[in-house]
Formats: sequence, C-alpha cells, structure tokens
Amino acid sequence: MLPTDVLSTAQQELTSWQGSGMSVMEVSHRGKPFVACAASAEARLRDLLSIPDNYKVLFLQGGATGQFSIVPMNLTSPGEHVAYLNTGQWSSKAIKAARSQDLVVEVLADEKESNYSTIPAPGSYTVANSSRYLHYTPNETIGGVAFDYVPDTGDVPLVADCSSTILSQPMDVEKFGLIYAGAQKNLGPAGLTVVIVREDLTGHTRAMTPDIFDYAAMAEADSMLNTPPTFAIYLLELVLEWVQNMGGLSAMETRNKAKADSLYTAIDTHDFYANPVAVHARSRMNVPFTLANPDLDKVFLSEAENAGLTNLAGHRSVGGMRASIYNAMGQDGVDALISFMNDFADRYA
Amino acid sequence: MLPTDVLSTAQQELTSWQGSGMSVMEVSHRGKPFVACAASAEARLRDLLSIPDNYKVLFLQGGATGQFSIVPMNLTSPGEHVAYLNTGQWSSKAIKAARSQDLVVEVLADEKESNYSTIPAPGSYTVANSSRYLHYTPNETIGGVAFDYVPDTGDVPLVADCSSTILSQPMDVEKFGLIYAGAQKNLGPAGLTVVIVREDLTGHTRAMTPDIFDYAAMAEADSMLNTPPTFAIYLLELVLEWVQNMGGLSAMETRNKAKADSLYTAIDTHDFYANPVAVHARSRMNVPFTLANPDLDKVFLSEAENAGLTNLAGHRSVGGMRASIYNAMGQDGVDALISFMNDFADRYA
Repeated sequence: MLPTDVLSTAQQELTSWQGSGMSVMEVSHRGKPFVACAASAEARLRDLLSIPDNYKVLFLQGGATGQFSIVPMNLTSPGEHVAYLNTGQWSSKAIKAARSQDLVVEVLADEKESNYSTIPAPGSYTVANSSRYLHYTPNETIGGVAFDYVPDTGDVPLVADCSSTILSQPMDVEKFGLIYAGAQKNLGPAGLTVVIVREDLTGHTRAMTPDIFDYAAMAEADSMLNTPPTFAIYLLELVLEWVQNMGGLSAMETRNKAKADSLYTAIDTHDFYANPVAVHARSRMNVPFTLANPDLDKVFLSEAENAGLTNLAGHRSVGGMRASIYNAMGQDGVDALISFMNDFADRYA
Repeated sequence: MLPTDVLSTAQQELTSWQGSGMSVMEVSHRGKPFVACAASAEARLRDLLSIPDNYKVLFLQGGATGQFSIVPMNLTSPGEHVAYLNTGQWSSKAIKAARSQDLVVEVLADEKESNYSTIPAPGSYTVANSSRYLHYTPNETIGGVAFDYVPDTGDVPLVADCSSTILSQPMDVEKFGLIYAGAQKNLGPAGLTVVIVREDLTGHTRAMTPDIFDYAAMAEADSMLNTPPTFAIYLLELVLEWVQNMGGLSAMETRNKAKADSLYTAIDTHDFYANPVAVHARSRMNVPFTLANPDLDKVFLSEAENAGLTNLAGHRSVGGMRASIYNAMGQDGVDALISFMNDFADRYA
C-alpha cells in the first residue's frame, strides 16, 4: 500500500515530470533533475532517521533476500564466525543464506519451541566478540512477531533486516552497524533496497562480489555504478516527504500503535478470533489471526473481499488471516476491518 | 524513452489497476492478477523473439552491470577459460568483471587500435573449445558501434549483452546460449533485467552465488525468490504489447533502419558533422556525432534543448553529441533532429 497522496502525485506527473514533457522514467539518471531527486530522498531519510554522518545510505536492487547473501559478502571473510537470532521465516532464510557463504553461523537463539510466537529475552543470549556481526529480524511479517527492544551487542556490529519496520517508529541508527530494507512495505514500490551502513564496515568486500553489491564501491559512486531504479527512488522521495508531512517518525509510531492496539483488542475481545503471539512481541505491522473454526476461513476472506477488505489471507505457508497495516494504512482502514470482524463474529460465532 | 501509449495507459491505471481500486504497485506479487501479468509478459516476449521451449526467461534485478559478474558466477567454475570480444566501454566493463571471477579471460579481439570505431570481422578470431562461452556486446551505446552479424561459436555458448538492441530487430535466439538485457532502453523502465538462457547452461552455479542470481533457482521459482520489481514488469508487458501492435520485430527493424539511415545521411551530407564509425558497424540505436568545430558543442546542445531536443550530449567520457533512437523514438523525432541539424549547419558552418 502506498499513500493516496503519493500515488495521486505520481499519476499527475507520470507523463511530464517537473514540466519536462518527459516521464521520470525517461530522464537520464545522471541528469541534474534526477540526481537532485535521489539526493533529496537521501536527505529526507537522513533527516527522518537522524542518520549520523559516518553512515552511508545506499540505493540498491535485489531486495532483502539479496542482502541475506550480500551482507556476509561485504562484512566477512570465509571461515569467520557470525551470529543470528531466529524468530521466524525471514530470520531462517537469512541464516540459510549465510550458511552458503562458508561461515561458522551461530544461532544464538531460536524460538522454534514456541512455534516462533515470541522473541528471545534480552540477556538470554550472549554475542561472542569473535562474531563479525549479530543479525536479527526486528519484525517477522509472516508470524507477526516483533522485537520490543534493540539487542545490545557491545562492540559487535548489529545488522537488522528492517524491511517491514523502517519508518514505522523512531530508531537509534547508532545502535546498528547495518540496516537494510526492501522498499515495498513502508518506503515505496518493489525493486529498491535501502542500505544504511556504518562507513568503517565497508571496504572489506570479498573479491568476487559483483561491484553493484560492494557497499564501498556503490557508496563511492552514489549508488550509480549501474542504472538505478529511478522510478522507485522517485516514489521513495515522495513517500519520505509524506512521512515528514505526517509529523515524522514519532507521529507514525503514535498512529501505528493506535492502529495495532485497536486491532489486537478486537481479536482479544472475541473468543472467535485468536492471535498466538506473546503480547510484548506482537507486531504493529503484521497482525495474523485465526478463526476458532478454520472451516470459516474461506467465507471470511470472501466476505471481506466483497466488503473491499483485500489481501487478508495469511501467508501461504501458515494459512489463517493476516492484516498488514503498514504506514500507508490509516486508522479508517483498520476500523473498517474491525467493524467487519465484529459483524462476522456476531453472525458466525 | 517509453511509447506514449504505454505511458498514457500506465497513467490512467496508476491508482486503480484492472478496476481493483489498487495500484499495480500495491497488489500482491503472488496474487492471480499480477502472476497473470508476469506470465503475459513472458508469453509476449517468447512470441516476439520466437524463444524456443528449452530456454528460460527470467526477470531479475541489478541491470546488465550485475550480469557482468553473474554470468560467470552461473556459467563457470574458478580457473576456467572464457572468451570476450572488446568493442568498447560496455565490453570492457564486462571483461573487467569477469577478471574478478578467478577466470582465464581471453580477449579474442580488441578494437582499441581503431579507437573502437569498428567491429572484428567474422573469421578474424577463433573461439577455443575450452572456452566456457564467448561474450560480446552487439551494440555499444557510447561508441555507437554495432555488430551486423552474429558470431559463430560452434558448440561454445554465445553470451550477448542485448540491453540496447533487444526488440529492435528480429534475432535468432537459438544461436545464443544466453541473452541478457537491462530493461531501460527498449523494454521498459530501469530496475528490471531480462535474462533468456538455454536450460542446459543452468544448474551449475557457484556455491556462494546469492539465490536471486542463481538462474536455475530463479527459473524454478518463476523469478519470485524475492519480490520482483512489479511495476517494471507491468510496464514491460505494456511495451511488449505495443511492439506486437506495431507489427513485431520485422516492423521495428524497418522503422529503426529508416530512422538511422536518415540520420546518418544527414551527418554524412554535411562536412560540418562527422560520425567516426565504419559504415557497416554503425549502430541503429545510438548515433554519436561531432561538430567540425567542437567550440560549438555547447551552443548546439543549448539550442537543441530550446527546440525540445533533449538528451543529445555525448557520454561524459567522450563528449560530442549522441542521439539515442531506441524503439520508442519515432521517425518524427528523428526528422525534427535532422531539421534542427540542417538549420544549425546553415547558420554556423
């Protein structure tokens, strides 16, 4: 979902950007107007997240899935130790990719026993100084599990897949060595990956890494070693402006907390609905829930779609229902869902 | 440049695709409507290029620059021999990237002596059977140099960077082992890379290659191991439909040949303008030219821009002028340029 205002601006400008008579997709990525657009996107992101000067902001391609391999290619040499926390399917994929990079992968905590319905408690795991980094997934979109704290890793760099949480609340970038995020949740459209990396962690990339995934080389080239995904960066710029106009990340957090609280309250109020996640680990972005009678799942989804409530099917690997309520979703959208859920429960419970 | 009809359709549909009330950027990439859109893009591409069944079509990210590294990661093991033809800056970049992949890189022909103003003649180089592939660049966008023949490599797979020629004329896919193309010239917007690869060449990817660049793994997953660049694929589908409606690749060739012929004739008619490329190696997509008096370059570019003729500066590495006349450019656009050039020559020669 993208903010309505952003889509509307993009529609108006699609055939003539900045009065040029050309689409933003047609202008040269090295021309002044587009270079200024990319620079503005970076400046807005730096402003919103208070990114310190010793962090580079990169606009890459390949998504978070690409970064699962590219992070170790940049931050490690073969044979070194790396640490991971496993809180669900995205963590698991990141771990699997790291294992293909000839590393000693230490999974410090794995929430398998809880069926990935909670997060490891602070202090329940220790990061060895020999680890090149600790990787974790602040929010698992499929399980709806989120960290309510930032792991303390001492001098070991903390690496986070923030695809589904970036811009949803303030974050202290200085606590992280590297943050990456696929754009398609809170930043813009699919096809753009944002990487925020502390400068001293770059420049040690493995020899055979493609240039376009060498953080130092891409930083040096302002992310333009290859033609960047110009339209996605243009939309990012509009989304960031929208977040600023909404009041920034504190305002987004207030809005997102209210949305999530209202939806979890609706779920918890009815025995008809259930969410299996430990309360302190509940995601504000992805709210999975089940019906007491799973035979009604299809009826629920079909009636919801007829009511204009789409994309509510749970991930194909787990079934059930899932409401993804990213930044662009307003309280009105959540209220419409809650109203439908209350009505559905009244009729079928 | 994108076809006006394509941009106009994209604009109309931007906020509500297929009557869904959602942008194509907002629908799930695994939902039926988008899966059908991607399948239609593949079907149209297969139809236009008569792609045989034993070739896979992949929609990747990272551009041709990414493929410079990813091709050897998929098609070779360390220490093996690969062969390249060097006809300019893009070939040179591909060669440099291959050299980083622990290979014996044999440059069978290098047109440096001609200042990259021509192509190696057929028969002037021999591909050893020990080579894993021969790589060449059918069209060099900066030098404006194009092959007017397809190299015969016997049983050695032929690999081609077709970023700037794909869809500009018919091509016999069976002569190639692998074709790759960044989308931003003739296929759609930046951020999408199309790979057409003979199936038997896949499945031998080096162990540490990211999954999203493992041709076999991506083929198996219908190019959806990561979230694909959905908007770019949607636009590709529209562009392919436009090419079909224009009459297909033979019609595009006729149109492109007429455009290029008229522009080269204008250049050759005036001593005031010059193009350094051997006539048989002249590109139909990129027409670089110089003024007899380079002091006038800035005046030319400035007056051209005032006349609505943009993007005519030569690549920053070579200067001068360059007209890129990809598929979406019509004869009317070329005629406007020719008319301006004739007038400019009359006034300044």
